[in-house]
Amino acid sequence: MALEQSLAALSLATVTAESATPTKTLVFKPKTAKTAAPVPVVVFALQSTQTPSPHIASAAGVKEPRLAKEDLVQEFFSTTPKEFSVANLNKDLAGKIKIVIDESIFKGDENLVLELSTESAKAALPATTIVEFLKSTGIELIPVDFSAEVAAPAAAAPQKSKKDALKKEKEAAKLDDAKLIGITVDKAKDFSTWYSQVVVKGEMLDYYDVSGCYILRPNSYAVWEEIQNWFNERIKKMGVQNSYFPMFVSSRVLEKEKDHIEGFAPEVAWVTRAGSSELDEHIAIRPTSETVMYPYYSKWIRSHRDLPLKLNQWNSVVRWEFKHPQPFLRTREFLWQEGHTAHLTREAAAEEVDQILDLYSGIYEELLAVPVVKGRKTENEKFAGGDYTTTVEGFIAATGRGIQGATSHHLGTNFSKMFNISVENPDGSDKPRVFAFQNSWGLSTRVIGVMVMTHSDNRGLVLPPRVAQTQAVVIPVGLTSKTTDEARKAINDGAVDIEQRLRAINVRATGDYRDIYSPGWKFADSELKGIPIRLEFGPKDLKEEQVTVVRRDNNAKYVVKLADLESRIPEILEEMQKGLLEKARKDFDEHRVIVEEWKDFVPALNAKNVIVAPWCGVPECEDDIKDSSAKKDNGEDEEVDDKSPSMGAKSLCIPNEQRELKPGQKCVRCDKVAVNWCMFGRSY
Amino acid sequence: MALEQSLAALSLATVTAESATPTKTLVFKPKTAKTAAPVPVVVFALQSTQTPSPHIASAAGVKEPRLAKEDLVQEFFSTTPKEFSVANLNKDLAGKIKIVIDESIFKGDENLVLELSTESAKAALPATTIVEFLKSTGIELIPVDFSAEVAAPAAAAPQKSKKDALKKEKEAAKLDDAKLIGITVDKAKDFSTWYSQVVVKGEMLDYYDVSGCYILRPNSYAVWEEIQNWFNERIKKMGVQNSYFPMFVSSRVLEKEKDHIEGFAPEVAWVTRAGSSELDEHIAIRPTSETVMYPYYSKWIRSHRDLPLKLNQWNSVVRWEFKHPQPFLRTREFLWQEGHTAHLTREAAAEEVDQILDLYSGIYEELLAVPVVKGRKTENEKFAGGDYTTTVEGFIAATGRGIQGATSHHLGTNFSKMFNISVENPDGSDKPRVFAFQNSWGLSTRVIGVMVMTHSDNRGLVLPPRVAQTQAVVIPVGLTSKTTDEARKAINDGAVDIEQRLRAINVRATGDYRDIYSPGWKFADSELKGIPIRLEFGPKDLKEEQVTVVRRDNNAKYVVKLADLESRIPEILEEMQKGLLEKARKDFDEHRVIVEEWKDFVPALNAKNVIVAPWCGVPECEDDIKDSSAKKDNGEDEEVDDKSPSMGAKSLCIPNEQRELKPGQKCVRCDKVAVNWCMFGRSY
Repeated sequence: MALEQSLAALSLATVTAESATPTKTLVFKPKTAKTAAPVPVVVFALQSTQTPSPHIASAAGVKEPRLAKEDLVQEFFSTTPKEFSVANLNKDLAGKIKIVIDESIFKGDENLVLELSTESAKAALPATTIVEFLKSTGIELIPVDFSAEVAAPAAAAPQKSKKDALKKEKEAAKLDDAKLIGITVDKAKDFSTWYSQVVVKGEMLDYYDVSGCYILRPNSYAVWEEIQNWFNERIKKMGVQNSYFPMFVSSRVLEKEKDHIEGFAPEVAWVTRAGSSELDEHIAIRPTSETVMYPYYSKWIRSHRDLPLKLNQWNSVVRWEFKHPQPFLRTREFLWQEGHTAHLTREAAAEEVDQILDLYSGIYEELLAVPVVKGRKTENEKFAGGDYTTTVEGFIAATGRGIQGATSHHLGTNFSKMFNISVENPDGSDKPRVFAFQNSWGLSTRVIGVMVMTHSDNRGLVLPPRVAQTQAVVIPVGLTSKTTDEARKAINDGAVDIEQRLRAINVRATGDYRDIYSPGWKFADSELKGIPIRLEFGPKDLKEEQVTVVRRDNNAKYVVKLADLESRIPEILEEMQKGLLEKARKDFDEHRVIVEEWKDFVPALNAKNVIVAPWCGVPECEDDIKDSSAKKDNGEDEEVDDKSPSMGAKSLCIPNEQRELKPGQKCVRCDKVAVNWCMFGRSY
Repeated sequence: MALEQSLAALSLATVTAESATPTKTLVFKPKTAKTAAPVPVVVFALQSTQTPSPHIASAAGVKEPRLAKEDLVQEFFSTTPKEFSVANLNKDLAGKIKIVIDESIFKGDENLVLELSTESAKAALPATTIVEFLKSTGIELIPVDFSAEVAAPAAAAPQKSKKDALKKEKEAAKLDDAKLIGITVDKAKDFSTWYSQVVVKGEMLDYYDVSGCYILRPNSYAVWEEIQNWFNERIKKMGVQNSYFPMFVSSRVLEKEKDHIEGFAPEVAWVTRAGSSELDEHIAIRPTSETVMYPYYSKWIRSHRDLPLKLNQWNSVVRWEFKHPQPFLRTREFLWQEGHTAHLTREAAAEEVDQILDLYSGIYEELLAVPVVKGRKTENEKFAGGDYTTTVEGFIAATGRGIQGATSHHLGTNFSKMFNISVENPDGSDKPRVFAFQNSWGLSTRVIGVMVMTHSDNRGLVLPPRVAQTQAVVIPVGLTSKTTDEARKAINDGAVDIEQRLRAINVRATGDYRDIYSPGWKFADSELKGIPIRLEFGPKDLKEEQVTVVRRDNNAKYVVKLADLESRIPEILEEMQKGLLEKARKDFDEHRVIVEEWKDFVPALNAKNVIVAPWCGVPECEDDIKDSSAKKDNGEDEEVDDKSPSMGAKSLCIPNEQRELKPGQKCVRCDKVAVNWCMFGRSY
């Protein structure tokens, strides 16, 4: 039908009537029993109308509507929340969704012209035309006077106060002095919104059209390149070689190793079509490369002289998780390195596992200034296909949660037996063939998320100098309308000179000479983007032959004589690098608490700590700890987020550094004797 | 049925009877009319039986059977030719294929035990059991006495002599002195087999389970890393930043830009399923990233101060071509870099197009020692979405074919208008908005194939020193059974010392101290892998305090005093680097011939030249040149390969360096006046 088409076309139109009244279109997901299909509620209102969720709940007869996540919007409307408008609605949605419509629109004022806008397009249409269209879709249409008092529905009443409290919290999280370009919420009060703002406004990353995928912008990719250079240099010294294996695995090969693939199967993305041809055999995109690589290890390793074989690749893998994605931490495609090595002896393999773990610890501590605890995973948490898993574990102080940093696995001969990676016994061909001892180890772009969460603050990103794409920005200051052209030129020239001298000694420096922005705006901009130090150069500095240096992390000011520029600036950058690590280490140390009695366990967790406790080492006890430390909910489908510490504590690792156990010391949870200290925590 | 299962299981079994007689299983594809489905012929014979194709043709009643390509084997038998044996046959194939069986097997000698072998497995079974199994499948079984004279079928007679000639050529291509580990065919006589052997035996690459995908082993990936380092350093100086965009594009976005995607659509791989869930919207794997990136360019570029935006990424792209794949040159997944930049003015964009082309030329000439001709593509050959395309064109002397090296496109405002990448006019907001001028430029791992084809020889790879993973190998020589332990130790220590001194000055040196191999074997091994120089160190060298250096490319010998090691070795490496380029440039120069008259055009092509000719610049004339220079075939489905120069000549580029045209000079093909000199050639 013509009207429907014309409305659908609007999403690409760019006509805007000057006098049109802005509107908003929002999608809410009501609370639904786990087994029921959700019925989203679309709210269409004037931009100026407040649309509190109790009104929506009451009008639509639903419980606790909350803003729908991107997945749901994609599922129902095949578009992103940012691109969604009522123009996306159609007859097919009748019975599947409800529309709550602002009475101010619905009443049918003939002169009212509405502006429909999405992130990329705007269009203007008479309100009557839009209402007529909405009616034509057959979708249930519920007019609401949002200015009226809402009657709290009996069932939702106890929840209402909780939601109100949450809303108040969100309000309270707003920063009073937030600048237009900057972060608008408080890290301590609304961590997840803060994080999303920091990574996007800091230009680390942008959200992408395909849910769960993100764009790594230069500000984050440069960190990844620093990590690559650092790690490549060191693994090459260990004799590891880089290579590249295909991203595709045939279903036949992938499914050969059932136990291994079981964990990944629900998340594997399948290519079934090329051009317009259906493929005879479906082809998977690698979730990890064991099954891609090991058949060739079997082919290449013919003799003990072919060992060790040590290959690494820098690649992307795909795990189509259906859990809520999070920038850097949980993404459907992510970049990583995966090392896969084969050795003649278990000892040689085990030695390498530890060497790699040390390198991972080095990436966190030396490059990213993030402290980690080295340890070994429990049987429950280790890589299913391997003998044991070592790990570096980090800590996000703002949420009190642990986070797995990177893992280095010893696979034993489990895979080599499966893939027949074997050599003649060096002691003689009459002896049994020797299966190779294998390792695999990986570190992903998740590290960047951990770094951001650790150091950044309410003014934006804080980047450790060693990995910052730009380490220093030079900003001319003190120029006023009264400044003579000559003085202005002298200051600008001086700033450019400083910048160039820094670049000459390989400090990654830039200058901000844009006329249209004030120094204050430039300071805020460089803070948002995490540039480690700014160098202010003004009339006084010119006269005194100095420059004023301000550190991003703690606002410390240094006055540096120009003569000392080449010696002092690298020092200040290194001081900052060390300062970040020290501060983060103090946070981690203070929030890694010894707990010996179960009664202290959950309170310590709730106080945003991770816990080191004596433990019996029994998997069932670990499960019990997790269950018993979860805050029990009402059993409905509640997502776990940062504000809801309902998640139980997992074992994070058995730290390599073990304090002595008292004689006969009991497990923190059960009556058995403890065998070691284990680190537990809520985690990402 | 039990027998079938037991035979199927054989493909993984490793039991071998000592007395078993080796067999071979080959798959042939007969010549078939284009519209007909092929009926492969499986030939199962004793290893020792000669199975000439005329016998097969005659017995199976087919025309011109030739060894089937990997695709066909995969299609029918779901395995690779190397892993295929009669154990892969089953009832489902009845009516779809034919089996030609060696009479020596079929006659049913009860004592005959056969060995079935594939690359990864061997098994032994009585001949009678296998024949019984083959009969049970219901597949047409045709016994042939290969020792008998074959009656040439009338229809195939003229072809037969052609095939015989080809067979003779293949025979003649065999190298007389081929070593077991080395290349067994002559580059000049059977280029495609030679190429495949060189890349696989040189450990550049391995064939992979998914057709058209290949494994880049460290020996080739290291070349790619050198290219990355070289190129990154230079583009960063130009202000280009690296980044990473997702590999997925939603169908909605991909199909938004119809003209652009038209060329790629038949080759796009589609993800339609994740785990066991069908995706609501199918998601493409990027064949290139214009549609991935430009929506975000539109978002990020808000003001002229956001220009230029210069991003590059190193990634893999997927083009699911159905043409015959070729290592490095045509692969379904390949690595490349793609740069995408947006500028305020056409001039700024055009300048960058040329700068990048210079860098591409630098990668070929300075790193890979491969000469290229810089030029511009004709309208027919340019990137469809752009204003113009510049290119570096290489030349494969062994086949006389041109090869496109890398391209740098100026897109004009075609994409910026489509994706609304625009800024307010710097001259005032009353002036029309300015659409960004865009470029894109890309270089892929194809470069490695060009390098291999250019320099390598019948002893294996020849790697230019600047990109070789290993630049020098030290090999102890002259040790005999009479050598004293003391002398042996002195020589080995001396070799290790040489190796370490070279590494200390960043020469990528290694040593080959394996006892079990002779120096001759080690020489051949290092030659196969393309190591630029070998350093032989023996008793005489020890005494004279010298080392004997041999260049891989021309066997030139140098005696270098140990005292001069640090100065001479880098010089020798550089001499070799220059020598390779000079030789290849001479080849290219001698085979880039000026042709002014059409009568000389095809003869020059057939003499393995590319041609520079005066040309009118009219697209239809270009089409005519291509058609008229193709050797007309009999119209049946004949694949173009290196031995069959039936392919017409395409325009390769209009070289930047133009000689003057004579007044009124005519186009080489038509009666119009020539507007410039254009380079034409058969090409990859």
